[in-house]
Amino acid sequence: MEECLGWAARDVSGVLSPYKFSRRVLGCDDVSLKITHCGVCYADILWTRNIHGDSKYPVVPGHEIVGIVKEVGSNVHRFKIGDHVGVGTYVNSCKDCEYCNDRLEIFCLKRAISTFNAVDVDGTITKGGYSSYTIVHERYCYVIPDNYPLALAAPLLCAGITVYSPMMRHKMNQPGKYLGVIGLGGLGHMAVKFGKAFGLNVTVFSTSISKKEEALNLLGADRFVISSDQQQMEALAKSLDFIVDTASGDHPFDPYLSLLKTAGIFVLVGAPSEIKISPLSLLISKRTISGSATGGTKETQEMLDFCATHKIYPEIETIPIQYANEALERLINRDVKYRFVIDIENSLK
Amino acid sequence: MEECLGWAARDVSGVLSPYKFSRRVLGCDDVSLKITHCGVCYADILWTRNIHGDSKYPVVPGHEIVGIVKEVGSNVHRFKIGDHVGVGTYVNSCKDCEYCNDRLEIFCLKRAISTFNAVDVDGTITKGGYSSYTIVHERYCYVIPDNYPLALAAPLLCAGITVYSPMMRHKMNQPGKYLGVIGLGGLGHMAVKFGKAFGLNVTVFSTSISKKEEALNLLGADRFVISSDQQQMEALAKSLDFIVDTASGDHPFDPYLSLLKTAGIFVLVGAPSEIKISPLSLLISKRTISGSATGGTKETQEMLDFCATHKIYPEIETIPIQYANEALERLINRDVKYRFVIDIENSLK
Repeated sequence: MEECLGWAARDVSGVLSPYKFSRRVLGCDDVSLKITHCGVCYADILWTRNIHGDSKYPVVPGHEIVGIVKEVGSNVHRFKIGDHVGVGTYVNSCKDCEYCNDRLEIFCLKRAISTFNAVDVDGTITKGGYSSYTIVHERYCYVIPDNYPLALAAPLLCAGITVYSPMMRHKMNQPGKYLGVIGLGGLGHMAVKFGKAFGLNVTVFSTSISKKEEALNLLGADRFVISSDQQQMEALAKSLDFIVDTASGDHPFDPYLSLLKTAGIFVLVGAPSEIKISPLSLLISKRTISGSATGGTKETQEMLDFCATHKIYPEIETIPIQYANEALERLINRDVKYRFVIDIENSLK
Repeated sequence: MEECLGWAARDVSGVLSPYKFSRRVLGCDDVSLKITHCGVCYADILWTRNIHGDSKYPVVPGHEIVGIVKEVGSNVHRFKIGDHVGVGTYVNSCKDCEYCNDRLEIFCLKRAISTFNAVDVDGTITKGGYSSYTIVHERYCYVIPDNYPLALAAPLLCAGITVYSPMMRHKMNQPGKYLGVIGLGGLGHMAVKFGKAFGLNVTVFSTSISKKEEALNLLGADRFVISSDQQQMEALAKSLDFIVDTASGDHPFDPYLSLLKTAGIFVLVGAPSEIKISPLSLLISKRTISGSATGGTKETQEMLDFCATHKIYPEIETIPIQYANEALERLINRDVKYRFVIDIENSLK
């Protein structure tokens, strides 16, 4: 069996180093792909460092995987050798519950199996995209549209779908409506790009003035607001239809909720430690707070196709695998514009 | 001009006593109604006791008003003398903004004018339904359907619409779905009744076992759960489509959120002092929390008609106006099944 070369964390230090392991034999529904790129997500930090206390070492992180098909099982019809393929945050599910039947497998009643650090159906621990190749049931593989650069496709598979899914669900694709985006990292910058593609007027809220120029000129936001500037905030009272909150740090919620119009919708995709709000922020103007995390396979493929059609590309910094530890440190310090993508193909050898 | 006899609070003690005042002259769009009944709402406590610090004494409370038309202005076409009429939580709005145009006047951009303790367009302070008669623009008057008992109609005008509006908005009228109702007071018992009329399976959550029998046998709930019973709560994990939270006391939210299925909706209509939740309660199963407070004139009339058609009647305790102070005390102590209604017609003289 072909040996898989990966980078793994061995303990709570989270330090990654080369690690050889084997993957399962290709099944009849499986796609084997040579990994060319893998995006670096905050989840990679959470599980390499055992933040949730459930890490199963060695942990090979990475769930924004892009590669080229090198072999397919006998039942596989959607993919053939040489195709460009993406794999996102999960690689299996029961395929039989109401959610799986709706291709919302992330909500599988028997639990979707995460791309890394999860117990797979065969009892092995799943291992992610910081590795040379992987084998995934074709259902959880996505077609990367022709001409879409592989490196740029990687961040779509977690960051992209995580903002696209709730934006579609809450009907944010209505041109002329007003969107606020809190935080300008991997998720936030994609929310801005989707917002502009949907024809929205987009306001970025950030704690750092250093992001202003790029927000307006590179990402195309219509307005940039420093969230600590009370005057600027108050001037926007009841002016927004939607807010997408991508900030993972703790922050107050009521000042943002007050910016929403009647029946305005606040979508949480970041993960602060706690949400504390005044009931009046919701009651008086029947506002809504809703959470979301990635999406189903149907909407993920739709999102990839949408990005190709509308030429929506994440902003990335490409790095070699040897830089992974430093990249994770920089991600913790929010020092990335806007997503690291590991060039697996050219550096993992 | 006819003198209006009411009961008013004069100071933060909130103690109500007889108070004579005058109302405006009947305008061409106005309806004058002899008040027969007025429901007792928690709002009556808030403003007679200056809980929000904005009370304008003397305060004549009451915004669940039912009466009989005794005079109409020259432009009034929807009502004639002798008609049964209801008035709810607001009596004026700009009539010209996007929300007024959608008959969602409660969200009027220039602010709907509350039925009591608000500054009216003529600069006077509005006075509520603990009084012998009132004069209201016909737009804010509702038709009480034929044969619907006047006393029972009163609680519909605040408690009823407050739960009906979000239940309709969030599509809780789908037979066979599962609804949880937290708290069993004026709002909660109406949520149960609407839930059953919509064909839902209804679970009541209460802190007090004393409400079990009535919840099941009088109100028709399918299940009764003591919210402190962790085992019962855990057995219901991910089993509900909707929760309507009518509790005004502080309580944890995460244990209830965990009872919602994927994409489940939690509607807040009570007013605890704070909402504290774990982001994970929303993120993982894309759950939603949404607030709501009363409703527009269109949906209020629809709700009244729905109650008449489906023979939905609030459970009330009828009291004379002389009992109002004791009733407010009992309301604070949650000692009411399930709404006090003042028999204005027979006691206010």
